Order: sequence, then C-alpha cells, then structure tokens
Amino acid sequence: MRASNYQYSTLRDAPTDAVVVSHQLMVRAGMIRQVSKGLYTWLPTGVKVMRKVERIVREEMQKAGALEVMMPGVQPAELWQETGRWQKYGPELARLKDRHDRDYCLGPTHEEVITDLARNELTSYKQLPRNFFQIQTKFRDEVRPRFGVMRSREFLMKDAYSFHASPECLQQTYDVMHDAYCKVFDRIGLDYRPVRADTGSIGGAFSHEFHVLADSGEDDIAFSDASDFAANVELAEAITLKTAPDAPTEEAKEVYTPNCKTIAAVAEFLQLPVEKTVKTMLVKGINDAGEEMLVALVLRGDHNINELKVEKIPGLVAPFEFADEATIVRIVGAQPGSIGPQGLADKGVRVIADRSAAVLSDFCAGANKDDYHTTGLNWARDIGEVEIADLRNVVEGDPSPCGKGNIVIKRGIEVGHIFQLGQTYSEAMKASVLDENGKAQVMWMGCYGIGVTRIVAAAIEQNHDDKGIVWPASIAPYDVVIVGMNYEKSEAVREECERLYQELSAKGIDVLLDDRKERPGVKFADCELLGIPHRIVVGDKGLANGMLEYKHRKDSEATDVNKETAIDFILEKI
Amino acid sequence: MRASNYQYSTLRDAPTDAVVVSHQLMVRAGMIRQVSKGLYTWLPTGVKVMRKVERIVREEMQKAGALEVMMPGVQPAELWQETGRWQKYGPELARLKDRHDRDYCLGPTHEEVITDLARNELTSYKQLPRNFFQIQTKFRDEVRPRFGVMRSREFLMKDAYSFHASPECLQQTYDVMHDAYCKVFDRIGLDYRPVRADTGSIGGAFSHEFHVLADSGEDDIAFSDASDFAANVELAEAITLKTAPDAPTEEAKEVYTPNCKTIAAVAEFLQLPVEKTVKTMLVKGINDAGEEMLVALVLRGDHNINELKVEKIPGLVAPFEFADEATIVRIVGAQPGSIGPQGLADKGVRVIADRSAAVLSDFCAGANKDDYHTTGLNWARDIGEVEIADLRNVVEGDPSPCGKGNIVIKRGIEVGHIFQLGQTYSEAMKASVLDENGKAQVMWMGCYGIGVTRIVAAAIEQNHDDKGIVWPASIAPYDVVIVGMNYEKSEAVREECERLYQELSAKGIDVLLDDRKERPGVKFADCELLGIPHRIVVGDKGLANGMLEYKHRKDSEATDVNKETAIDFILEKI
Repeated sequence: MRASNYQYSTLRDAPTDAVVVSHQLMVRAGMIRQVSKGLYTWLPTGVKVMRKVERIVREEMQKAGALEVMMPGVQPAELWQETGRWQKYGPELARLKDRHDRDYCLGPTHEEVITDLARNELTSYKQLPRNFFQIQTKFRDEVRPRFGVMRSREFLMKDAYSFHASPECLQQTYDVMHDAYCKVFDRIGLDYRPVRADTGSIGGAFSHEFHVLADSGEDDIAFSDASDFAANVELAEAITLKTAPDAPTEEAKEVYTPNCKTIAAVAEFLQLPVEKTVKTMLVKGINDAGEEMLVALVLRGDHNINELKVEKIPGLVAPFEFADEATIVRIVGAQPGSIGPQGLADKGVRVIADRSAAVLSDFCAGANKDDYHTTGLNWARDIGEVEIADLRNVVEGDPSPCGKGNIVIKRGIEVGHIFQLGQTYSEAMKASVLDENGKAQVMWMGCYGIGVTRIVAAAIEQNHDDKGIVWPASIAPYDVVIVGMNYEKSEAVREECERLYQELSAKGIDVLLDDRKERPGVKFADCELLGIPHRIVVGDKGLANGMLEYKHRKDSEATDVNKETAIDFILEKI
Repeated sequence: MRASNYQYSTLRDAPTDAVVVSHQLMVRAGMIRQVSKGLYTWLPTGVKVMRKVERIVREEMQKAGALEVMMPGVQPAELWQETGRWQKYGPELARLKDRHDRDYCLGPTHEEVITDLARNELTSYKQLPRNFFQIQTKFRDEVRPRFGVMRSREFLMKDAYSFHASPECLQQTYDVMHDAYCKVFDRIGLDYRPVRADTGSIGGAFSHEFHVLADSGEDDIAFSDASDFAANVELAEAITLKTAPDAPTEEAKEVYTPNCKTIAAVAEFLQLPVEKTVKTMLVKGINDAGEEMLVALVLRGDHNINELKVEKIPGLVAPFEFADEATIVRIVGAQPGSIGPQGLADKGVRVIADRSAAVLSDFCAGANKDDYHTTGLNWARDIGEVEIADLRNVVEGDPSPCGKGNIVIKRGIEVGHIFQLGQTYSEAMKASVLDENGKAQVMWMGCYGIGVTRIVAAAIEQNHDDKGIVWPASIAPYDVVIVGMNYEKSEAVREECERLYQELSAKGIDVLLDDRKERPGVKFADCELLGIPHRIVVGDKGLANGMLEYKHRKDSEATDVNKETAIDFILEKI
C-alpha cells in the first residue's frame, strides 16, 4: 500500500471520553470512529487488524473440526419464546417489529437458532458430534457502552455450538475447543490465562473464560505462581493451611471503642494488627421451618465477603441480603459496627465463620454492645462450636487451592468463554437424535465464544507504550513501513524505496510505503502510533554508503543495514 | 474434509414454496435453511461458496484501490434525518428503539454513515479521490421476500462509496469500478452484462447495472447482437430505420368490427397482419394553461407502451395515468377499443405517434365509433401532422440504438449496481473539502454495490442441470470429491483414497473424501447435487489394473486414469 492512497486518520489527541488506553489509541491511530454511543465505524487500519484476528480464529476453528455456518442476525421471537428467553432476557436484547408487526430481535447470541437447526438437521447419533461456528456481528444493547470497542453495542464475535450424544462426548469436544482457544491466543501472541469460571466444587470443568492479562481489565483473576491454576477471584476457593487455632494466651476483655465504626478504626484505636480482628455481618437466612432468621458471617478483619459463595450455602438467601438494622438491634441488642460472634447462638442466630477467621486465637470482635469491642477472644472458650465455610474472596499470598504455589491476582480482559450447556436448550426445544437403539435422546450442547473485536482492544491494552501501539507481529496492520527521507526531491531515495516496496511485496509481505508529502517527524510518529513492527528508513546519506536504517517498533535505536542484504535481513526479522 | 465429519443436509425434494431453481437447489444441496420469512441460515456448503465469492470481491476491490472499512449495521436516525430519508424511506427500512428510546434503523445501505465519516475525515482535496468499501450483512424489510436468498431480507453485500473533488475524477473512479466489477464476474465465470441503467439521453454514463443472464431473471435486458450495448428493456431507446411512410395505396374505409375488443381480435377478424394496425391510448396530460387535457398515444399493434418514456414527455403526467372512460366517450364519442388518431386534433386531443407507428402506411385504427375500425389509413392524407416520439419498449429484432446490430432480449438477475450519486448526499450533509484555493468544495460521490449472496443464487440459475448444481470452478464448495467403492470393506480402496486425499490436499486443493457409510448411488447423487467439479472414483476392479475413474461434473461419461499419473491429471484439469 502506498501511503498517499491510504486513509490514515491519525490524531494527536484522544477524545475526552476515552478513558482506557486501547480506546484512546484506536481513535488516535485512526482505527475506529464512533457513529453513535457504542456503535463504531472501523477505518482501514482497524479493519486490517480485525481481519487478521478473524482469519486466525477461523483457521483454528476449522482445524478443530468446527463447520462454518452463518445464521441470521435478525431472529424471530418464536424461537426465543420456546426457551423462555423472550421474557427473561432484559433490555440488552434489542427488539423490533417487522412491517407485518411480527416480533424479532437482534441476536446477541444464537443458542435458539442453532438448536432449531440442530433439531431439524441432526437426526441420528451417527451424525454426532457436530460443531458449528460462525463469525458474525452481534448487537447487545449494553446499559452503559464504554471503553471503545471493548464494551460496544455492536461487535464481531465468533460463536460455536456443539451437539453430542453424551456428556463424555461433550467433554471431549470441550477439551478440543479449549486447546483451539489456546492456539488462537498463542498464535496472536497474547499473554492470557484460561480461567475456570465455575467454582470447581461440582467436579467437572463446565466453563472456562479466557482472559488477556492487562492492568485495565475489568475482572480480577487469581492464579497460582507455581501451576496453571487460574480462576476468577470471585470463584477461587480460599484456602487456609492452618487447621486449628492456637491455644488461648489472653483473657477476653470488653473495651470501650468510641466512634470506631470500621475495622480499621478499631484496630488503629486498640493498636491491634487488623488480622487479629474479625468482622461480623448479619444477613438474612431461612430456617428449617421456612421462617426468616438471622445468620452471622464472621470474617477476618482484612478479608472481604464473597456474595456468590455465601449465596450457595444452604439456608442462606439468594440474592444475598443484609439484615435490616432494626431487626439486628432487636435481636442482638447492638448496632452493626459493634457485633461479635459471642453469645449469638443463644439469641437464635446461626453463626458461620470463614475458614481464616475460624483459626484465629486471642482475637478482637464487636462486643454486641454499642461502642464496645471484646479483645482476647478464643472460639472454643468464649464462643463455642460454629459452622465453618469459605465465605471470602481470595487475596494475594493465599495458598493456591490447586495445592501448588500461592495466589497472585492480576486484572484480565475476558476475550473468550467456553461453556458446557448440557441439555438446557436442547431440552426446551426438543432437540433429540435417535440413539443406537432407535430411542430419542436429547442432545448435549456446548457453546464457545470469542470476541474478535474485543481481542483487538485487549491486544492494545497489553501492548503499547507512550508512542502508541506495539502490535504482536501476527495482527499488525502492516508488517513493514518504508520511510524515505527527502522523498520528494531525491530520486535515489525514491528509487530505493520503490525497489524495497516491490521486492518485499512480491514476497507476500504487507508493506506500507510512506510516500506522503509530510515531514519525516510526522511519518515516524504515525508509524509508531500505528504500531508497525518493522521500519526501514531510506536516506541520501546512508545510500551514499550503501546503507539503510532498520528499527523494530520495540527497539530504542535504529541499526544500519547494507542495502544489498536488506531484503534478506528484513525477511529474517519477520 | 472427510465427509463423515461434514454436514451434508442434502434433500431429495425441495420445499413447495421454492419456485426458482436456485432456491430449490440451495435447499436440496444443504446450502441454506429458512429461519423465518426471508431470513436464512447458511449451512457449511453454502458458507464455503459464499466465502469464495466474498474473497474474489474483496481482492478485486483492493486491486481497484478501495480501502476496506466496516460501518455499524445499526444506524442512528439522526443521520437519516439529515438527508430526509428517515421520512422518505418506506417500511423497507426496519426501525427500532434502543433501551433509552432513541431511534435507530437496520442499515439497508450506508450513504449517510459514510458521508458522515467523509465530512469528518476528508478535509483537503489532496486526500481525494478516496474509495471506501465494506462487506456486510444488510437488512431490508422486503414487502414480499421470495426466491430464497435472491430476494431475502438479510443478505451479504459489498458496498463501496467514493469521494471526489470533481465530476471528472468521479468518472475516472467510476470507470475503474466498472472494470473491477467486470473482473469480479469474469473471475467467478458468469455470463453477465453491464447494463446502462439510465436512458442515455442525459449524456454521461451515470449508472450501470450488472446482470447475470438467466431465464429466471426478474429483469429484461436488451442488448445488441453486434456490440457491447446493453440496457434494461424499459430504458433502451426504440429505433426505426425507416424515416417516412410509404405512399398510400388504399382508400380509408370504415368497417364493422363487432366484439373486437383487442388488437389481436381486430387483426384476426380483418385478416390483417398486426403490424399493419395501430392502437390508440388516451392518457392524461396538462395543456399550456395548466388545465387537464387528453393525449392520444399511437403505437403499432404489436408494440407495448413504455410508461417511463411517456412520463418524460413534456405535458404528460407522471405517474402515467389513463383517461377515464366517461371523459373519453364525452370528448371522442367512442369507447376505448374503438379509438383511432384521425380527427382527434379537431376535438382538442394532442396526438403523439410512436416512431414505428409514424412510418406506417395503409394501416388500420379504431374509427372513433363503437364497434368500427378504419382500414387503409395514411397519416398525411387522413390524419395530418402529429408529434412523433419514442413511446414503446424495444422488441427483439429492433435495430440496436448503438447503431450496430439488432436487439436481443434476455432475462437477467441484477447482481451489481454502480452509480454516480453526484452531490446529493454530500450537499445534504455538508461534506466538503478545501480546494487548491482554500475554498470549501462540496464533494462528488459514487456508490457501488454487489450482492454477494445473490451472486451465489444467480450462479446456480445460470449453471445447473437435472442432477443439481454445476458450479463455476472458482466458487465450487470443493474442487474435487473422492468416492471409494466398497470403501468400508476394501483396504486397498481406503488406502488409495487416503493417498489421493493427502496428496491433493497438500497441493492446496479443496478435497472432499466421501468416507460415509452410504451406497455409491447416494454418494454420486450428493456430489452431483452439490456440483463439485471434479470426481475421482476408486474401486477394486480399477485398482487391479492400476486405474482410477475420473469425471468432470459436466461430462456425461467417466474416463479411466492411470493411478500413477492421477494427481498430475487432476491438477491439470483444475
């Protein structure tokens, strides 16, 4: 491509509403422009990158045995009514009526359409397993579109759906797709983690998210520093190696703690490490008779409650709900902020201690008396036996639940998700095949998504510097840029640029020849902003000595290269 | 691809609502399935063909210098309000509201979005010309979706838009795109015609349609048998080589023609050739004073009126409208069916004769008296001078308006359309650049569309036989199919099939190895239905003599091929 025919659209400044670096750089590098909130036009530089990602995804899906299909983006309500999602799906599902007043939606996902296809086209177990994928523009009417194409309303997605005669067969395809996803992100060259998205407590691996690690990620990923264990922080099991509290060394003592409304304030006031305090939260539960009751959740002062884990405990209510203050005062006799586990059982409150809180000794808790705390508490002596459960989020340094190493937490951007759907959709839509005995058997399903356009943004979040984007080679808009100094006036420079352009292009290299009437500074800034991996500079001075200048986007200094061997040099670098 | 892993979905019968052959064959060959009226899922065989068409289109657009972009499918109403199309566009424009009750539409076309982009990104004449294209799923809420993907509501389209500082520059890019379109259809291997879609009377070539010739086409294309002239029948100029009528040889004579309500009946009754009759239609016109008046249009009996041409005549009304019977009887004194041009001028009726009618002599017309006609009529002697114009559709055998050859009429399927938009959109949306003198200059625009999915259907309309599809090699779902006889039992057959499969695949050939547990008849029928160009049959009998069997989809008989040279033989064929 000759730059004079190319649409750069580079900008010095990012729009003020662009808060994440990928959004800023995609606008500045002329990759995208907003048309309406969460709706973007992809400009030539953006499309080139998007197509390269799309190609890698398509190739790996084909290698994994998935067959490409293309389902309609506009879907009839009838199919969504069959699964009940027409009612259940919130306003994220954009709905419209056609000219005959019939209901349709813009497909945010395609489980209904593919299951309808499967129940018509798949009739025998002999046809299974089958795995269909498509690469398609999706629409989700996000409540708050943001971060550019990271959370836009329209986005390009690869979604795949597999059909099976048994859960074992589903697990096999699931594993193949897990590998295919790893190959996609490996080929692109991203630092990523497959993250177990289920709690792991059910046994099988029912769902994995694929996260690109980047400081700007919206999700916290906990992973082991010594194994490939990785899980969403909210789902990682919190382990305590200590199995029982130490023996008491202090007496329990009630102390006056005026105006100490937080654990931090109490610890500060009493000059105690926060790890020697507990916080006690009273939430709503249901007793065996089905009546509402109070449940006290006791956590170490420096730990945070994990609502998802709490909701899964039998007798607790979901969604998670704090008890109201009036009830607390009536039953416990003190306000929140001065609550402790001691004596609660006698008041009919169920007490559950987090694993880490349950192994404390000589600790401090609220005294169940306003403005008082009790120090020197010990479970067996002062409180009695309580239930123990995993109630908290993991924190850095926790032992990894896989048994190897300790937890490290990094932020991640979810770019892929694979899921064993089981029979939810096939059951609802009666998608079955005949088995070996001629009996109808409801199929098992898996689904597998990759956010193609989101990968583009995530790659930038992970690969940029103060000058712009630093693309992984696999998805850079161009492989090489050629910049001529004094291009307009020097015929020697123009000729050498042209030679390099022709010879590299002939080798299948994607070359941008910057033949614009611009100052070299502008050209250098543009190719650094665009993140083109390899740069060759041609100048009269170098040519006089038979030399060119080469610089990789990541290099700080340029290298002189003999022009006779320059092509081989570049090919080797690529 | 091994057939055992492939989704055939072939059917013996087409659905009853499939009336055109491409629709029937696309369903039967397992290319598409209807999800809802005018909405289809493309199955693996369909997607393979679609992607091959898409690739050819993309490559030719890039060669033509167009830059790929991707605009949103969901478009904000504000842009459409700027051009007035939000109001003007009928129910074909699907509209929806987002969760914040803002108006959007599903883009059936992208002039507004691209012009908005251009006015922001193009600021100087130095950036021009610029040509942007995208390949995208469009939605048009057709009043009557039909013919499968030929007229579906969702379809894949390549749309391009160019921007220019002058009409001359627009013409240049228009010509380049015209050539690129020809290359696309040449590469695919279709019999097509670029058809002038304007009347030609304005001078420049402002619009061309590209039609694939096929009997099932919805449009009639008139073209010369001796030049590359081609035009929509409705737009082709009707030429008469004869410049004046012959001298009269008969006397005018009123004859009784009872119950002759049509020209055919009159000619039959009077034993006259229909070319010696005229029909006279009375339509509404406006006189110089702005009052309604009657206009008589006189055509040869075997010719059909062309409303588009009539509407363009000054003083005629558009849309074209017949006069009501009461007015006709009151002014002319006879009912429609017995009208003729003679004496009408005296009754205040404007008379316009078609060029072919104006050169008749001794002809027959209505007598302006119920159930009577006049024979032996001659213009100068019996009627007087009348206006002469082109009022009719061309017919086969007419001299071509280009001056070379005669008109042939074939049916065509419109698969592409290129158009010089001029300044309509750029004017409405204030899309201008600064010219050499720093003055704002509204840009000139062209737009260029190709129906990617429609090409797939059109290719089938043009290439099929009673066994199924006969793909042009460029877009066949597979290049080669290998069928093994007695595949399950004969290891020799399996080994040879595998060898061919591996060796051909390694050469980059798209091979389908039919390893299914099916009878050979089923396998042969499927690969003929799918239209795979090259078939190799491997059997024990042939192998014993070192031979394989080759057949091209178009061959009626198979050929024996030595298995040692089979690979080279196939490669040569491809």
